[in-house]
Amino acid sequence: MSERMRTLTVKLDQRSYPIHMGEGLLLRAGELLGEAGCGEKIAIVTSPTVARLHLTPLEDSFRRSGFKTTLILLPEGEEHKNLASLETIYDRLVSGRFERNSCLVALGGGVIGDLAGFAAATFLRGIPYVQVPTTLLAQVDSSVGGKTGINHREGKNLIGAFYQPRAVLIDVNVLQTLPRRELLAGLAEVIKYGIIEQPELFALLEEKLDPLLSLNKDLLLEVIGASCSIKARVVEKDEREDDYRAVLNFGHTIGHALESLTGYETFLHGEAVAIGMVQATLISMRHGSCDKESCERIYRLIRRTGLPTELPSSIIPHELVKSMETDKKSARGKIKFVLCEGIGKTRFHWLAPEEIAAMIAN
Amino acid sequence: MSERMRTLTVKLDQRSYPIHMGEGLLLRAGELLGEAGCGEKIAIVTSPTVARLHLTPLEDSFRRSGFKTTLILLPEGEEHKNLASLETIYDRLVSGRFERNSCLVALGGGVIGDLAGFAAATFLRGIPYVQVPTTLLAQVDSSVGGKTGINHREGKNLIGAFYQPRAVLIDVNVLQTLPRRELLAGLAEVIKYGIIEQPELFALLEEKLDPLLSLNKDLLLEVIGASCSIKARVVEKDEREDDYRAVLNFGHTIGHALESLTGYETFLHGEAVAIGMVQATLISMRHGSCDKESCERIYRLIRRTGLPTELPSSIIPHELVKSMETDKKSARGKIKFVLCEGIGKTRFHWLAPEEIAAMIAN
Repeated sequence: MSERMRTLTVKLDQRSYPIHMGEGLLLRAGELLGEAGCGEKIAIVTSPTVARLHLTPLEDSFRRSGFKTTLILLPEGEEHKNLASLETIYDRLVSGRFERNSCLVALGGGVIGDLAGFAAATFLRGIPYVQVPTTLLAQVDSSVGGKTGINHREGKNLIGAFYQPRAVLIDVNVLQTLPRRELLAGLAEVIKYGIIEQPELFALLEEKLDPLLSLNKDLLLEVIGASCSIKARVVEKDEREDDYRAVLNFGHTIGHALESLTGYETFLHGEAVAIGMVQATLISMRHGSCDKESCERIYRLIRRTGLPTELPSSIIPHELVKSMETDKKSARGKIKFVLCEGIGKTRFHWLAPEEIAAMIAN
Repeated sequence: MSERMRTLTVKLDQRSYPIHMGEGLLLRAGELLGEAGCGEKIAIVTSPTVARLHLTPLEDSFRRSGFKTTLILLPEGEEHKNLASLETIYDRLVSGRFERNSCLVALGGGVIGDLAGFAAATFLRGIPYVQVPTTLLAQVDSSVGGKTGINHREGKNLIGAFYQPRAVLIDVNVLQTLPRRELLAGLAEVIKYGIIEQPELFALLEEKLDPLLSLNKDLLLEVIGASCSIKARVVEKDEREDDYRAVLNFGHTIGHALESLTGYETFLHGEAVAIGMVQATLISMRHGSCDKESCERIYRLIRRTGLPTELPSSIIPHELVKSMETDKKSARGKIKFVLCEGIGKTRFHWLAPEEIAAMIAN
C-alpha cells in the first residue's frame, strides 16, 4: 500500500470537507471515513461493473475499521439516473433501518455519485455521504462541489440539490482499468479547467499528453490535483451557483443540449463537452472575445486527444438551441453563456438562443 | 380589505423570511410576494377543495401585481404525499419552462406545503417558494421552518429536505371555512407550544377555549402569532434539527407511529398528536419528570377541545414502538423522546422502544 496521499480542503464553513488523492486509497477508505464522523452503517451504492472491479478492497477496508456495509447495486448508464433508481436507494435505506448518521458511499462515476448524493441529500432530510469516484471525469469534476441530482426526461439534472459530501477519496489506481474512451471523456473536463482558469495546466496537457494517456500516475495525480483545486476554489466562491460557479459550464451549454438531442446514447458527457468547448470557442471568436491563436490551440489539443470536435451533421442548430431553453442557466429566455477570452480567461454573456444558433450555423 | 397585518421574521441569515399574519392577506398576496424578489412566473400548487374556496382572490392578486400564474392541482390527502405527486409537479414545471427565479406557491394544508416545498427544494436544485397555509395546523406548524418532504410507504416524511420559504402568508379568514375537525387538529399543535415553551399560552387556551373555537379572529391571531413566534425561535436556534429542534416533536413520536399503524386513515395528524401528547405526558409522569397536576391540566384541556386522548384498543404497545424505530429521531436503536417537566418545560431522554412500550402498557 502506497503512503502517498495529498489532501485538499473545500472550505465551506461547517460543510468543509477533504479531498484525499493518492494511490491505493480504496484500501485506506475505512480509516479515512473514520475521520468523517459517521455512524457504523454504510451503504455502498455502485454498479455491477464497478463492483466487480473495485468493491472488494473498499468493503474489506470498511469492515476492518468496524463499519457494517450494505451493498446497493444500480443499473449502469445515464438513462438510469432517474426517480426509479432513487426509489431503489430509498427502499433499501428504509428496509436497512438507516439512521441520520448512517453514511452513503458512492463508488462509481458521475451517474452513481449524483444519484447517491441526491439520495443522501433527501433521505431523512439529509444523511452523510462520501464520494469514491472511479472515472477520471468523476474524480476531477462531479465528485467535488456538492451538485447532486437526477435527470428528467426533458433534460439533464433538472431535479437535484446542492449537498456537500463529507469527504472525497480519489484513488488513481482505479483509472488503470478505465476504458480509454472514458478516460478521454474525463480529460475533456481537465482541458476545460485549463481553458477557464489555468494556462499552465493547459500547457502541461499540450506538452505531456502522451505520457498522461499512458496513465503515468504522477502526471495523473498532478492534473487531478490541479483540476480539483480549481473546482474547490470556484465552489468556495459560489457554492450554489448564484453567479460565478457557472464558469464551470464552459462548453456545457452546447454539450448538454447535444446529449439531450442524441438521447444520451451517442456521446459520453465528456465527449459532448469536448464538442461543446470547440463550438463555444468558435462562438467566442465570432463574438470577438477570443483570439484566433487561442482558438486554434484549443481545437488542436482536443483533436490530438482523439475526442470528437464536430457537431454531427444530423444536428440542426435551431433544434440544438431549443433544447438549451430548459437549461438551468436560462432566464428570461436568454442563456448565460460562458465565452472564452483566450486560454485561462472567460466571461459571461447573455445570449438569445437564436444568436447562438446563428453563430453555430456560420 | 383589512389593513391589520403583523409580521414576524424567522432569522436565518441569508435565508431569513417574513411570516405575515392578518385578515384578508390572500387579497394582498401579489404585493407581498413582490417583496420576495421572485421572477414573474408563479405556479400555485393546491388541491381541488382548497382551489374552490380560496384560489380566485389569490390568483387575482398575483395577476394584478403582474405575475403569470400556472395552476398545479394535486389530489387531496396524506396518501398522495409521495413521489408520484412530486413527479406531477416536476412535469408541470418543466413543460412550463420554469426557471431558477420562478416561484412555487403552496396554497393548502401541510400535505400541499410539504410537497410544494420539496419540489421547490429540488427543482433546478432549488427555486423560491412561498407558503400560504389554509389550515390552522399548517399556519402554526408545517408552513414555518423549512421542513419539506414526502412519505415513504414505510414511514412519514422519510424523504425530504430542509429548505426555507421566501415568505409565509397567514390569512385567518381562510379558517372560517375550515371543517371543525381540521381546526381541532391544528389546535393540538397550539396546545403543544404551550406545553413545551409557554405556560401563558397554555393558560390562555384554558381560559378562552370557547371563543377560540368560535373562530374569534383576534384570539386566532393571538394564538397563531404566539405559536409561530415559538416555532421561529426554535428553528433559529437549530434549523436542521441537530439537537434542540426535536423539542417540537413532543407528542409526535407516538403520534407518528399511531398514524403509520392506522394507515393514515383513522386520525388526522393533529388528532394523533393529541393522543401522543397525552401518552407522552403520562410517560413523563411515570418516568418521574412531570407532576400530577400538570399532567391533569394537559389531559383536561385536550379532552375539553374534543380531540381524542386515548390509544385505540386495537393498538398493541409493542407494535406501536416497533413502528417508531423507522423514526428519524432514532439512533443506535434508541428513540430521542421529549419528556414534559410540567407546563412550559421539557427535556430529551433516550428511551429504548421496549421502555416506551412498558410505560404505555402500564
